[in-house]
Amino acid sequence: MAKRNIQVCMTPKLFGLYADKKSIVVVVDVLRATSSMCIAFEKGVEKLIPVSTVEEALEYRNGGRDYILVAERNGKAVKSFDFGNSPQVYLDMDVKGRTVVMTTTNGTKSINIAKKDHDVVVGSFLNLDAIAKWLIKQDRDVIIFCAGWKDKFNLEDTLFAGALVEQLLDTDLYDNSCDATQASQVLWDRAKDDLFGFLKNSSHRNRLAKLNIDSDVHFCLKANQTNKIPILKGNVLVVEDEC
Amino acid sequence: MAKRNIQVCMTPKLFGLYADKKSIVVVVDVLRATSSMCIAFEKGVEKLIPVSTVEEALEYRNGGRDYILVAERNGKAVKSFDFGNSPQVYLDMDVKGRTVVMTTTNGTKSINIAKKDHDVVVGSFLNLDAIAKWLIKQDRDVIIFCAGWKDKFNLEDTLFAGALVEQLLDTDLYDNSCDATQASQVLWDRAKDDLFGFLKNSSHRNRLAKLNIDSDVHFCLKANQTNKIPILKGNVLVVEDEC
Repeated sequence: MAKRNIQVCMTPKLFGLYADKKSIVVVVDVLRATSSMCIAFEKGVEKLIPVSTVEEALEYRNGGRDYILVAERNGKAVKSFDFGNSPQVYLDMDVKGRTVVMTTTNGTKSINIAKKDHDVVVGSFLNLDAIAKWLIKQDRDVIIFCAGWKDKFNLEDTLFAGALVEQLLDTDLYDNSCDATQASQVLWDRAKDDLFGFLKNSSHRNRLAKLNIDSDVHFCLKANQTNKIPILKGNVLVVEDEC
Repeated sequence: MAKRNIQVCMTPKLFGLYADKKSIVVVVDVLRATSSMCIAFEKGVEKLIPVSTVEEALEYRNGGRDYILVAERNGKAVKSFDFGNSPQVYLDMDVKGRTVVMTTTNGTKSINIAKKDHDVVVGSFLNLDAIAKWLIKQDRDVIIFCAGWKDKFNLEDTLFAGALVEQLLDTDLYDNSCDATQASQVLWDRAKDDLFGFLKNSSHRNRLAKLNIDSDVHFCLKANQTNKIPILKGNVLVVEDEC
């Protein structure tokens, strides 16, 4: 039986080189967009609309419905929005049945690049085991699409890619011939016993530390806090449970 | 004293994100362009003209001078050229004082991208220690520019980047805040005891194995076969000795 392919795309700028119009794309922006999405669904959000620009997000404000508006640029909340990108805002709020409109520096942009030609799901450490199990059930090639930081390579998304690659390769159903896939696995293997320590000098952890949100980093690196798989249907993320 | 910056650019497609108009750029295409360049100079070549297209290279043929014309696309020699990209062609030939005109799939393209705004030198495992020493003497920031494979990330160039990063960081003169720099160092550290084995499943080693040129791979992974530093002056590579 032909094995399934796993590619890792390290930044949005490279996505066109990996896109094949048939793989399932797992979009990853560990710090913090896709972590926030996973926990939002865990806490009961019903729909999440990822948009690329602040202007698009603002149009929803004037739409008359009771949206939760989330906008982050350069790590900070955008003025006049309900929230920035912290996953922890969903913890103490009753968000059951509500719709979130979200725009972030990297994550929502990546979703909107991938959706043109591919089925899209959202991954983070928070739903790691669930998304691995869900992917294994699909008989499909996979592209793990790291959102990076402003088109640059980043460590945290690549580590997540390696963690997911490890689980997929354990099944023997997948082929491992992509150089970026192999690299992500080596990085994960080195980092997995102390993710927070490994990311000590990483550019984005330092960016967030300056904003005093190290607790978000700890939160986003915790594996398996939810079984929810955010799946894009049209332009809207909805959720599937991986039981 | 402010530390010098080291960035690793993993593919030509990302170079614009790292370019700063002031760093020295070390172009790396381990398999095989920059290895060939280093050994060509070691064997006495006086000048090497890297051109981006086969057509440009052919213009030199009609120029009347006694150029050695080298052209590679997709791992193979281009028809009607003297040689492909193998570094081993320089071993048994008298090339003293001659000029090579070279075009390759990735390496020469990267040199021509970098030269627009940066000083360019050429690195490979064959001149690893020499280029590290030479860089340390310059009081400049460094971008290690991996040529990759058709704009994709590749392992072998990133491993070389990691090897060079290790030597530069040992001096305590350089800062290590770029995520790609940190990743390359981790990969190098994992691979360094058995580079050939580590690259077993890499895409380009497999591409070359199909062409029966595994011996080139062994050749290109040998460290410190020359002290020559190919340096770009205008559009021509010439050589500096690092003693």
